[in-house]
Amino acid sequence: MTDNSNDAPVAAGPEPAPGSRRSGRPALRPVAEQLARVLDTIGTIAPIELALLDAQGLLLAEEVHADAPLPGFDNAAMDGYAVRAVDLRQATEDHPVVLPVVGDVMAGARSMSGMGPGLCMRIMTGAAIPPGADAVIPLEDTDRGVARVAIHRPIRTGECVRRTGEDLPAGALALGQGAILGPQQIALLAAVGHDRVLVQPRPRVVVISTGSELVDVGRRAGFGEVSDSNSYMLAAAARDAGADAYRVGIIPDDHARLLDVLDSQLLRADVIITSGGVSMGTADIVKEALSQIGTVEFTTVAMQPGSPQGFGTLGHEKTPIFCLPGNPAAALVSFEVFARPAIRKLLGKRTVQRQTVEATALERMESPDGKRQYRRGLLHREPDGRYSVSLIGGHGSHLIAAMAASNCLVVLNEDVTEVSPGSRVTVQPLMLAQR
Amino acid sequence: MTDNSNDAPVAAGPEPAPGSRRSGRPALRPVAEQLARVLDTIGTIAPIELALLDAQGLLLAEEVHADAPLPGFDNAAMDGYAVRAVDLRQATEDHPVVLPVVGDVMAGARSMSGMGPGLCMRIMTGAAIPPGADAVIPLEDTDRGVARVAIHRPIRTGECVRRTGEDLPAGALALGQGAILGPQQIALLAAVGHDRVLVQPRPRVVVISTGSELVDVGRRAGFGEVSDSNSYMLAAAARDAGADAYRVGIIPDDHARLLDVLDSQLLRADVIITSGGVSMGTADIVKEALSQIGTVEFTTVAMQPGSPQGFGTLGHEKTPIFCLPGNPAAALVSFEVFARPAIRKLLGKRTVQRQTVEATALERMESPDGKRQYRRGLLHREPDGRYSVSLIGGHGSHLIAAMAASNCLVVLNEDVTEVSPGSRVTVQPLMLAQR
Repeated sequence: MTDNSNDAPVAAGPEPAPGSRRSGRPALRPVAEQLARVLDTIGTIAPIELALLDAQGLLLAEEVHADAPLPGFDNAAMDGYAVRAVDLRQATEDHPVVLPVVGDVMAGARSMSGMGPGLCMRIMTGAAIPPGADAVIPLEDTDRGVARVAIHRPIRTGECVRRTGEDLPAGALALGQGAILGPQQIALLAAVGHDRVLVQPRPRVVVISTGSELVDVGRRAGFGEVSDSNSYMLAAAARDAGADAYRVGIIPDDHARLLDVLDSQLLRADVIITSGGVSMGTADIVKEALSQIGTVEFTTVAMQPGSPQGFGTLGHEKTPIFCLPGNPAAALVSFEVFARPAIRKLLGKRTVQRQTVEATALERMESPDGKRQYRRGLLHREPDGRYSVSLIGGHGSHLIAAMAASNCLVVLNEDVTEVSPGSRVTVQPLMLAQR
Repeated sequence: MTDNSNDAPVAAGPEPAPGSRRSGRPALRPVAEQLARVLDTIGTIAPIELALLDAQGLLLAEEVHADAPLPGFDNAAMDGYAVRAVDLRQATEDHPVVLPVVGDVMAGARSMSGMGPGLCMRIMTGAAIPPGADAVIPLEDTDRGVARVAIHRPIRTGECVRRTGEDLPAGALALGQGAILGPQQIALLAAVGHDRVLVQPRPRVVVISTGSELVDVGRRAGFGEVSDSNSYMLAAAARDAGADAYRVGIIPDDHARLLDVLDSQLLRADVIITSGGVSMGTADIVKEALSQIGTVEFTTVAMQPGSPQGFGTLGHEKTPIFCLPGNPAAALVSFEVFARPAIRKLLGKRTVQRQTVEATALERMESPDGKRQYRRGLLHREPDGRYSVSLIGGHGSHLIAAMAASNCLVVLNEDVTEVSPGSRVTVQPLMLAQR
């Protein structure tokens, strides 16, 4: 984590005044501009055919039509007796019409034995209406007779009959391109006989942590060493965004090794995400190695945390690569702001950004002028349905416990320097899951 | 789908008047009472240990403490120079203090070479503060010298130093039991060295469709046959609720076969869900077969669609089984109302019900007295953030295309018979995913 992505305390003064003669800093790039560059670079992934249940949650990339009508045949909407409406004209509560029952029609029966005038057949819900019948009288309106049945009311032609094609006529559009495949949509695709569908696949996101100070989780970290938490966090965040994530793990601060790993990962990656090594230190290996390639741009974004950022493309396929800061909070915020929208775009989503909510600030909040600040917060829903938000932990982007206790980011825009308690602020919830 | 779960048109009159002499219907059980029975029966699943990323989205079933402090050692918050604050007392913009640079401290360096008074060392973000130093002056406040560095301001002791244990002291609680493991929580578990955690596992839900009229999706349905869409839909819905779903597929209307399959599936199932065969038809095999066992109760719930329901337990482990109606909309609504909360309870969620929203009815809606009605609807969010809802399709619970076009259920309570346009109604969104 050899980078300088710390969102240092506002009061502690490590920020030089703008124009400071020693700062030597490049002009800061606005968040919106960096995001626009990212999204402009993100292309599309070719649709793939998947088995129906593997397509859950994905976007349909084709139009699906009903080859056959749905339902495929006239069938009973209730358990009862298939009848001719004309035969029941005189039926009343006190003077039922009594008809001979000449057979049973079970659901799934393939025979089409018909039924003459003045007769009826017992029929199950979903079973095909026998030729000669034009309505179904429900069991409840009869004496449930076996050989003969007494029927206590008249019936309209077509009553309790589900008509061929009334759900979808043959050739009709069942689902359009861009439909999200939830349980109901999957039901419809199955109903029209599709066990495979063309969808926008989940982007394959390769996650790499860099830094010689990192050790694998589960190995005891020695003095000066740190457990690699970023690759776990970013893999989880990528999945949460809808990607298939591959955690490659740790690359020490070594040019050749990093370039080798990136080269081999290009084979399977739709997106590569690294963390660490993007600042101006002498061991900021990601920046050093990738700056030379010329297709990855390192810049300082007007945001806190996460200002040093790299983004560009690698390889023949121009695979997008995000080089995120190494501090956990800076990495997560950068992921949320730039990588998550990119993954959502690759999934074909119309809305690539998370929904935000307005919440009442429960405390005073400060933000540096000219930078968009993302503070970790705790969003509460008040009994009246309105939201309120308090801050969690300090500014330090190395504070993982505080980050883990937060459930949202409080977004303080570039022109905001102070928010007084009771004001409304914009909040980006990080988790929709209910407890 | 030989059951009578149709939520038939209100006007068509298949509902006999209460007390009708032929109805022979058992008293209807209120939805709330049936749900309470279900949730009372649902126990817990023993926690299991999973690899960290496999635990994503699950509930932590243990307390996790930090064995070591986090950070594990005092380290630099910025790239800069490790100094003694006392040496910089006289530094000003115009009269910098110049110190010899006696070494570099890289992140991950394990040596602890110290530093005498009047000297400094270059240090990377995250690197251990060398013995003798007590602050880090950021690069920006220096001339970035290599052999000697000019420093232009004084510094406080501890400035730009991340203190050992400031995120979590050794032995502190990192995450409590019941924490949901999102990306940030996974980051914290990794940071404190846990690559495996004890969690509430995803319930294993086995899904079975019954009915001799069903054919596998992809096989052409002949006359009288229907593609099995329910097992796909319910498997997807179970997954969406957080379960691991296993689609067993179709069991024809055959007692022995059904009991055999159930018996073998008990080995892996935490929950079994069947659809079809729960009504009063002569081929309602699920009801016939399971009623005899005595541990599954079939009842008629005061709801529409989905009134005929079976619920109980099977086998030594008392595995819960839901016997849902066969009509797709009835099956989905029954799943939402009874099975989804059960799965959420098994996951350990505090909130087992979906969030509902209040929406303005865009049209007149009718509902039978004494039954809770769940209509398929289309929920819109208006520009002012308020919701409005219209109905999709008719009452017919066989209408799959209409169901697939809906994104919510409009819930009309037992005492509601009519809703006029402009009134507020309760709506249960079926999909949180954004387009």
